[in-house]
Formats: sequence, C-alpha cells, structure tokens
Amino acid sequence: MRTLYHLWLSPFCRKVRIVLAEKRLEFEMAVEPVWERRDAFLAMNPAGEVPVLVEPDGAILAHSTAICEYIEAIQPQPGLTGRDPLAGAEVRRLVAWFDERFNWEVTENLVTEKIMKRVLGTGQPDSNAIRAGLKNIHYHLDYIGYLVDRRTWLAGADFSLADIAAAAHLSCVDYVGDVPWDRHEQAKDWYARVKSRPSFRAILADSLPGLPPPKAYADLDF
Amino acid sequence: MRTLYHLWLSPFCRKVRIVLAEKRLEFEMAVEPVWERRDAFLAMNPAGEVPVLVEPDGAILAHSTAICEYIEAIQPQPGLTGRDPLAGAEVRRLVAWFDERFNWEVTENLVTEKIMKRVLGTGQPDSNAIRAGLKNIHYHLDYIGYLVDRRTWLAGADFSLADIAAAAHLSCVDYVGDVPWDRHEQAKDWYARVKSRPSFRAILADSLPGLPPPKAYADLDF
Repeated sequence: MRTLYHLWLSPFCRKVRIVLAEKRLEFEMAVEPVWERRDAFLAMNPAGEVPVLVEPDGAILAHSTAICEYIEAIQPQPGLTGRDPLAGAEVRRLVAWFDERFNWEVTENLVTEKIMKRVLGTGQPDSNAIRAGLKNIHYHLDYIGYLVDRRTWLAGADFSLADIAAAAHLSCVDYVGDVPWDRHEQAKDWYARVKSRPSFRAILADSLPGLPPPKAYADLDF
Repeated sequence: MRTLYHLWLSPFCRKVRIVLAEKRLEFEMAVEPVWERRDAFLAMNPAGEVPVLVEPDGAILAHSTAICEYIEAIQPQPGLTGRDPLAGAEVRRLVAWFDERFNWEVTENLVTEKIMKRVLGTGQPDSNAIRAGLKNIHYHLDYIGYLVDRRTWLAGADFSLADIAAAAHLSCVDYVGDVPWDRHEQAKDWYARVKSRPSFRAILADSLPGLPPPKAYADLDF
C-alpha cells in the first residue's frame, strides 16, 4: 500500500491527497509530527517536511510538486496538467501562484497563525498577520472570479492541478472560517463545483481533534 | 525569436537561461524592471515577476517552474528531468530544495540584501540577514558534497535541472563573492564541472553596470 505522510491543514498535503483521489490510486495516511524531527523521517526527507509519499515498493518521494508530477507520469489519466505543453505551462503557473503567493499572503497568515501555532504551542496568533491575510484574500478570490469568468476551470477548459492547488489552500482557510464567500459569487460557484467532486470528500471529512471546522466547511450548499 | 524577460542575478531567470542553452534553443533577453510594475508587463504576468518567456508565436509563459517544464516538453533532448518518473521526482525534489530552501536561507539573505536593495534603492543591507546567509550556506554546500559523494550529479547519474537550479543560485551568491568554496572541496569540484559547460558561459559573462563580479566568478580554475 502507498503511504502519504501528512499533516492536517497542510495545503500541500491536501493537494497530493486530491490528486491521488482523482487518479483513483489507493493510499493510507500517516500523520507526521514534523516538529519532532524524527530521525527516521529526516532520513526519508532531509527537508523535514510533509508531504512524503512512500510507494508500495518502498520508493520515497518528497515535496508536493515532485510528488504530483510523479503521479501524473505513472497514472496519466485523468490528465491534470493540460492537454499540451502550453496548457501545462498555464496549469503550473497557477499552481505556483497558489502554492507561493496565496500561501504567503493568505494561508500562512490565517491557517498557520490561527491553527498551527495553537497545535504546536509556538505562541499567540499575530493579529497583524491575521489582518493582512483577511485583506489579501479578496484579491485572490477576485482573481479566481476573473479566471472562471473566462474559462470553465482556472487554467482552461479542463479541471486541473491548478484547481486542486487553489482549492487545497482555500479549503484550509475555509476550515478556520475565513473565506468571505458571500462577497465573491464567482469564486464561490467555482469552489462549489470543486467541493462536489468525489476526490474532495475526504478533505471535507477532516476534523482536527478539539478543533472541529465550522458547519459550512463540509456543506455543499455553503 | 523567443524573448526572455529577466533580471540580472535572479536565480530563477538564470535557471531558464541555462535550460534554454542546454536545449540549444535560441533566445534574446530583455531586462524587465519589475519594480516599475509596467502595465504591459503585468498584462503578461499578473504576478509581476520574472522570468517571463514569450514564444516566437506570441505565446506567453510565466514562472520558472512552468517555463522549465514547458521547454522540457517541447524539446525533450537532452532530457533534464530524469529517465523515469522516480528519477524525475528526485530531480524536482532537489529543484524545490534550492528554489525554496536555499533561496530563503541563502540567496535572499545575501544577493537580495547586498545587490537588489542597492540596485532598487530599497534600503541598507540587513547585517543580521547577511550573517544568517553566510552561516546557512555551509549546510547547503555540505549537502551538495554529500550528494556528489554518492552520485555523479546531484540527482543521479545524469546532469539535470537539479544541477541547474543549484548552480543558478550559487552563481548569484558567487557574484557577490560569498561562496566559501575552499572549505567545501566536493561542492567546488561539482561546481567546476557545471561552470565548464557551454550552457553556463553566458551566465559567467554577466556583469552588472557599476557592480562587476570578483575575478574568481568567471574563472574556471577558481
């Protein structure tokens, strides 16, 4: 069996989980307390980060970009990186947009501050960071709205890794109840479509011990 | 003709330049003053960042990861992302290592502080950041030494995008004279091999107006 070492509310781990589910590849999950810096885990990934994927034959893969490209290569259907090289570039540009820009400007400011600091006991949330995250998210939801006003999915006609990366981040922010969906109808319509996919079910079933999500988190009519 | 919008001493632009040169694809370069946030440039890349590649037919590509994967797809030879999916995952893990970890821990602390702040007039270099960068680089040079002690190139038997990403970052740090090569023989031997490749020549010929590199920068026997 394939094993994914992960953390709850890591958008990078969620991205891999959704990709595996879209490809109908079975896997089991193991929560990795990365802050403990276990020797056995560092031997698998010297970066000390999740996600790490261990294949049935024991092969070890680290970093969400590397893992997603690998899965796309070993299981090309359904394709998640565009029908041709140019479409692939648009998919990967948007994946980087969400994994870098959205992550720095929103996810880190809201999810890391509110949840990870609490879980890890690394201090009080920084109210300036939270304020910045709550302000920045509008720009990103507007950008999603702009894209789906012109395209069926974020990167074009096909559902792709771009939608998965964006939804992985947004689902984490949604878990802390900080996505102002009501002010962004187009982004909300797009997220409702992602949310209703079977590959997203396990994400919506996530519940941290002692920190359950708000009701709307898993609601398909949010 | 293909046009690459770039900035001097951007490791991400250098990565794309080396990849294009390895593939023997001709291109011209245009320096993009990203800090001016030109409307015409933002229309090409709403992230406002270099590199941006404009293809001969006018197609526009942004973000170094997207561009490098695109080039690999349209010009597969010589292959730079591994002979099989697992080798590709190791290449991409290491690319991410240098583009994320090395970039945060070293490049930003040394190159951005010393050069970009001066070029952009955005303030004095932060001596704490520089101290951190000078400390952190040893760990990364040790890691390179560890890898090439076991492999011909960073990701395995073949020269790959992992070597290119690592050398792109190190060449920027080398431009400011901050790589302690003499204390890292194995990393130095590896870098000498990269430096001697024809694809690296243009990188070694770079010279910022008013800020020339130290003599060893372009020296193959450094």
